[in-house]
Amino acid sequence: MTAGAVGRGRPRDAEADRAILRAGLELFIERGVEGTSIEQIAKKAGVGKPTVYRRWSGKEELIAAAMETLVADEVQWASSEQIATESPYALVEAAIDGAAAATTTAQYRALVARVFGSAVSHPELMATYWQHYIVPRRKLAAALLERARDLGTVSADTDVEVAIDMMVGAITYRVLQPDPPDTPEMRRYLRAVYRQIGLLPS
Amino acid sequence: MTAGAVGRGRPRDAEADRAILRAGLELFIERGVEGTSIEQIAKKAGVGKPTVYRRWSGKEELIAAAMETLVADEVQWASSEQIATESPYALVEAAIDGAAAATTTAQYRALVARVFGSAVSHPELMATYWQHYIVPRRKLAAALLERARDLGTVSADTDVEVAIDMMVGAITYRVLQPDPPDTPEMRRYLRAVYRQIGLLPS
Repeated sequence: MTAGAVGRGRPRDAEADRAILRAGLELFIERGVEGTSIEQIAKKAGVGKPTVYRRWSGKEELIAAAMETLVADEVQWASSEQIATESPYALVEAAIDGAAAATTTAQYRALVARVFGSAVSHPELMATYWQHYIVPRRKLAAALLERARDLGTVSADTDVEVAIDMMVGAITYRVLQPDPPDTPEMRRYLRAVYRQIGLLPS
Repeated sequence: MTAGAVGRGRPRDAEADRAILRAGLELFIERGVEGTSIEQIAKKAGVGKPTVYRRWSGKEELIAAAMETLVADEVQWASSEQIATESPYALVEAAIDGAAAATTTAQYRALVARVFGSAVSHPELMATYWQHYIVPRRKLAAALLERARDLGTVSADTDVEVAIDMMVGAITYRVLQPDPPDTPEMRRYLRAVYRQIGLLPS
């Protein structure tokens, strides 16, 4: 392969990756893990199966990466530097509008239902997503909670891992309930959740 | 129908109801809402379809009732009289062993995954279960939280509905995570959740 071919190949690869991830996300939301195959994803994305397999070893890994595109695009996460130096209240307040918008789309609700729905029947998907994407974010959330605990707004006996589950669990449970919130209602809801933990002032 | 036939019929009816609910629960856990039909439930329970339809108008109503048999059999719920008069700490402490045992079975995990998994694709099931079984229990939980708030252990600015979501959401999220807790670990976890809200002492 010539240098020129590599030069032309790179943008095409990135474009193919995006098409594959978009196809994976749509098929997973529409049909679940069991109804989605690498073959269908390749067909929907307009690429050959080898192109998919060069990049992802299996459908769980691909679907986990596809889920992440939806979550990462919509929510701005604080960096560990920001967490170490800025006010936890200010960081949480700055994240609320984006989080409220991201968690009230039909696609987000459908994604949460699919992921939770496959947790027992297809545990590899949750395990892959957890290991690659959730664990690093939980470390940032734990750092934020520990800093707020040092500053005295989160109570001294808070179990950080349990507090993270209470926040994420409330939000994901709320969007699956009948009569799910719209974006302004979710902003109010998120503020109540963070206040309860001590990440926003009373 | 003679009085004698009615007399003989009642125990048989109760037995048929139990068989139908058990069949409905097992099929729902195994195959989800879309993979379960009244016909399959009747066949598995060893009754005719008319017997099922005499009692339940559709599969969502039947599955909701079947889910409730698992939840109601395992967990002891405090009455509104107990909530009005007894110590919230004591009521919560008394419920922990049963709740930890009930929420760590393979069947409970599979049920939570199926219910959440069907929330967007089959909203009638969640709506039916919510209206018939969740709303009355949330009223009791709200009464308990309000009493604890009056007594000063739950903070004055707690949003009761949000606090219920944080507790239920944490528990249901935790059991769907990789490496779900065993019963002793769930007892510890539940205590941390209730302490965070103020329903157990620090």
